[in-house]
Amino acid sequence: MFGQMMERQLLISSIARHAELQHPRREIVSITADNPRHRYTYQEAFARSRKLANALSRLGLQQGDRVATLAWNDYRHFEVYYAVSGSGFVCHTVNPRLFEDQIVYIINHAEDRWLFLDPVFVPLIEKLQSRLPKLEGCIVLTDDAHMPQTQLPRARSYESFIASESDSFEWPEFDERTASSLCYTSGTTGDPKGVLYSHRSTVLHCYASAMPDAMSLSAHEVVLPVVPMFHVNAWGLPYSCAMVGAKLVFPGSKMGDAETLQSLIEEERVTFAAGVPTVWQGLVAYLEKTGKRVDTLTHVLSGGSAVPLALMDLLKGRHDVEVVHAWGMTETSPIGTIRSMSPEANALPEERRDALRARQGRTVFGVELKVADDDGKEVPRDGKTFGALKVRGPWVAAGYYKRNGDDVFESDGWFNTGDVATICPLGYMQITDRTKDVIKSGGEWISSIELENLAVAHPAVAQAAAIAIPHPKWQERPLLVAVLKPGASLSREELLQYFAGKVAKWWIPEDVVFVEKLPLTATGKLSKLQLRQQFVGYQFPPG
Amino acid sequence: MFGQMMERQLLISSIARHAELQHPRREIVSITADNPRHRYTYQEAFARSRKLANALSRLGLQQGDRVATLAWNDYRHFEVYYAVSGSGFVCHTVNPRLFEDQIVYIINHAEDRWLFLDPVFVPLIEKLQSRLPKLEGCIVLTDDAHMPQTQLPRARSYESFIASESDSFEWPEFDERTASSLCYTSGTTGDPKGVLYSHRSTVLHCYASAMPDAMSLSAHEVVLPVVPMFHVNAWGLPYSCAMVGAKLVFPGSKMGDAETLQSLIEEERVTFAAGVPTVWQGLVAYLEKTGKRVDTLTHVLSGGSAVPLALMDLLKGRHDVEVVHAWGMTETSPIGTIRSMSPEANALPEERRDALRARQGRTVFGVELKVADDDGKEVPRDGKTFGALKVRGPWVAAGYYKRNGDDVFESDGWFNTGDVATICPLGYMQITDRTKDVIKSGGEWISSIELENLAVAHPAVAQAAAIAIPHPKWQERPLLVAVLKPGASLSREELLQYFAGKVAKWWIPEDVVFVEKLPLTATGKLSKLQLRQQFVGYQFPPG
Ligand SMILES: Nc1ncnc2c1ncn2[C@@H]1O[C@H](COP(=O)(O)OP(=O)(O)OP(=O)(O)O)[C@@H](O)[C@H]1O
Ligand SMILES: Nc1ncnc2c1ncn2[C@@H]1O[C@H](COP(=O)(O)OP(=O)(O)OP(=O)(O)O)[C@@H](O)[C@H]1O
Ligand SMILES: [Mg+2]
Ligand SMILES: [Mg+2]
Repeated sequence: MFGQMMERQLLISSIARHAELQHPRREIVSITADNPRHRYTYQEAFARSRKLANALSRLGLQQGDRVATLAWNDYRHFEVYYAVSGSGFVCHTVNPRLFEDQIVYIINHAEDRWLFLDPVFVPLIEKLQSRLPKLEGCIVLTDDAHMPQTQLPRARSYESFIASESDSFEWPEFDERTASSLCYTSGTTGDPKGVLYSHRSTVLHCYASAMPDAMSLSAHEVVLPVVPMFHVNAWGLPYSCAMVGAKLVFPGSKMGDAETLQSLIEEERVTFAAGVPTVWQGLVAYLEKTGKRVDTLTHVLSGGSAVPLALMDLLKGRHDVEVVHAWGMTETSPIGTIRSMSPEANALPEERRDALRARQGRTVFGVELKVADDDGKEVPRDGKTFGALKVRGPWVAAGYYKRNGDDVFESDGWFNTGDVATICPLGYMQITDRTKDVIKSGGEWISSIELENLAVAHPAVAQAAAIAIPHPKWQERPLLVAVLKPGASLSREELLQYFAGKVAKWWIPEDVVFVEKLPLTATGKLSKLQLRQQFVGYQFPPG
Repeated sequence: MFGQMMERQLLISSIARHAELQHPRREIVSITADNPRHRYTYQEAFARSRKLANALSRLGLQQGDRVATLAWNDYRHFEVYYAVSGSGFVCHTVNPRLFEDQIVYIINHAEDRWLFLDPVFVPLIEKLQSRLPKLEGCIVLTDDAHMPQTQLPRARSYESFIASESDSFEWPEFDERTASSLCYTSGTTGDPKGVLYSHRSTVLHCYASAMPDAMSLSAHEVVLPVVPMFHVNAWGLPYSCAMVGAKLVFPGSKMGDAETLQSLIEEERVTFAAGVPTVWQGLVAYLEKTGKRVDTLTHVLSGGSAVPLALMDLLKGRHDVEVVHAWGMTETSPIGTIRSMSPEANALPEERRDALRARQGRTVFGVELKVADDDGKEVPRDGKTFGALKVRGPWVAAGYYKRNGDDVFESDGWFNTGDVATICPLGYMQITDRTKDVIKSGGEWISSIELENLAVAHPAVAQAAAIAIPHPKWQERPLLVAVLKPGASLSREELLQYFAGKVAKWWIPEDVVFVEKLPLTATGKLSKLQLRQQFVGYQFPPG
């Protein structure tokens, strides 16, 4: 027997409708190529989004057709998000930092029909244009005054595209499982794979991520998404901020520029920001150098890769900013876990509390995790036993777009993340490795991340990566590849000696090699894939 | 085209699973008939709930069968909630304050097969037993030591019922639209009508109500639900607190006892409580009298009927407790609006801010409101124009249980609440009346609630009710029925005079009648139905 409740569908357009009525005057502030500080309200944003929806309706698109974006975080990109998904099309956010071949691959694979792109990316697409035969037209996210000369198909400025349209438009109603947006993974472990989100998954992810023990989003927050809108929908912030009526501050292409970030934070009174650890590293260094402040900022969400405890302590100690560690994936929309401290965690002695703070956190409601051994059996939640991290929930992918037979989507309904993790009795998960990066010595696993964390805690070491090298007796043994800090000197023996007593003896790297720099992926993550290629054929010194 | 996300269902059992893993050690504290202060953890609660699920599985119930409760707020009632709904049965929470005929009516109408009841209600059900032919068995919510002698069918104590059961039980998976619980309306305007909630509506309502600008529920809160678990699922708190891991404090039958509430708040360090205005009125009076304090309490949610601004000011001024006004109905699960202050509202001059504070608030995301005139046309959101309040959303009823043709479920998908309201440009809704209570004078509406609020603001008036009396010239004119404070004296003329200048002239009551007391419904709301019956045939004084 079913309940007798209304069958209202969870649609992205309902976020738009809610924000317009409930938060009409809240602001969206953007840095764009044509305006150093654009500001308007949610009311204006959604009125323009409806104009765009009317313009889109003339393009002959079918429900489910893909419309791509190649753009930084700003208000026009925000309008495109809502107009495309709200109309029943799929908003495919292309990552401009991917390698050119990858960009060509994903636009063709997605069969994008139209592309909304920032002026700065026009030369890139012109270069790739001949390899993108299915692209029918391009809208450049600017006005006529700033429109570059271009031969891109049917190219015109965004402002001229929407100018003569009416701002009245009835968002269509459809099944909440309808596809809303498409994002490809970062390509850290292989080719990017497409994740096709639905309206339902997007709205549920919003609810969960806005909760007090998650991002704690409200109308009183001023939010700076430093994570790009082409990166898992800027972690959902363009949706969740509109849902709760938080003021949004979009840094445009100035994402990596600490000076801009600091001035945006100060001038717009930003309270909450989200981004990868390198953003916070850059910001802290800039604040140290200039003595500038970020007084309104109370907490930042850090995800995408592990954040060092030292960085957390620095931001807390010097700037009273709480770093909230989070874990997620393109496949998880992305929020999986958030490191909120529970009352029990807060009651622990400082050392054990710090150990928890460094963990990737606890699941938000809706996400379920388990850690399994090689036979698929769940391992104890003892904080020590590690294994393959598996996840399920209404905003977790059930497959990749136009791909079949990926065995990461397991037959019992769980998604195998490719991460290796432990979970402690209080529910805090910690990523210890990626499955592909784990080092298997004599049948036992060594965490490459733990070795790296230890190495970078050494005052002379700037960066470090541990990879597995085949070994005649132990199958695999760890090799540590390290970059020294400018001017620092350290010998191989000293660094190896430094590990003694800090990890089990058999975890100590077999050897250390110093290099000038480590290879990065297109999205700035350490590329162990490339590093392993560099060290193919490497042999440990005898003895 | 559908997104490719997992089709995980939103089930009440997933709240149980989440709470056990994420908040295992958080406490649930209860006052029960057999224990003045029972305490245990979520982990223990759900282990016992699974024992109960195993016990229930032996009763031969079918999916969708109704299992009733007649009980105050405590841990056993909590266990019943999860075991019954989690197993796929429907938890029908019967309101013991209803009149006996109403109790008989709803138990028979729901066709409840089993009843879980507090020992204190055993005599009541024994008395009604002969009129409840479909009731197969009764479980008394106590242990054998406290089990009363009774002839109720198959009666046994709850503890003996679950004692020998295993605590391992796999919660079944099913469609999220499956019915989960059943609650009848308060019977203020007529016979109680059944609202049949689903797992989906319950979980979505949880998400929305826990948000920072709604109830702001987190693992750091200690929550005291003073609203009964038979009243729209205690406003969802037994679910939402488990979802976020808030400590729960259940006052048992001591709901209306300010002394108990104060000591629970103090001893358990309660931060948030929820209940109807009379609860706060009683608590404030008690604090005034005894000089006792509620230092840990930061905010209370008040709903069910309008809360006077004076009470809000008193709680804020003397005790630093923020009263959060909320509006809802049995038909809306119940949260419809919550009076969170937006930044724009906070920026208003004090007087206008106070006017907003007295309003019933803004919709939480998921609920949509509109106010319509007699022709069904939406009226402007100007804060002045009033009309019929209509609502829709995934946790709003689409019909009443086993009833057809109720025209409050309108053909365009909106539910006509029976309330009369205005909405202001900032989105704040205010209830001005119930449709059935509105006074229509010369074709124009007069708000009975506004007249009553004005009357009780007079220092000599304790309570007041305004009702419509037929009038030869104006169709209807307001009659004010008032109860004076003990010892106070006030003439009819003085009170009428007092209205001058405070409302439009034609809003001033035609007459005042002083009475000893006003009639209340079974749930303690003012019964205008009865009051109108008392004044049938009343004639206004000539002139
Ligand atoms: N807080 C964190 N700490 C450590 N690692 C993290 C954290 N957050 C995310 N990650 C890593 O990032 C991964 C998800 O990244 P993303 O979805 O951007 O693509 P990718 O896995 O890097 O690329 P691909 O899947 O194409 O190889 C996770 O599986 C995890 O390995
Ligand atoms: N904050 C509030 N201010 C004013 N009135 C409120 C408030 N909250 C709820 N109400 C009133 O309570 C009603 C909902 O109450 P409930 O669902 O318990 O049953 P009822 O309407 O009293 O009874 P019945 O529908 O059986 O006549 C609303 O329709 C509204 O009239
Ligand atoms: Mg990946
Ligand atoms: Mg009602």
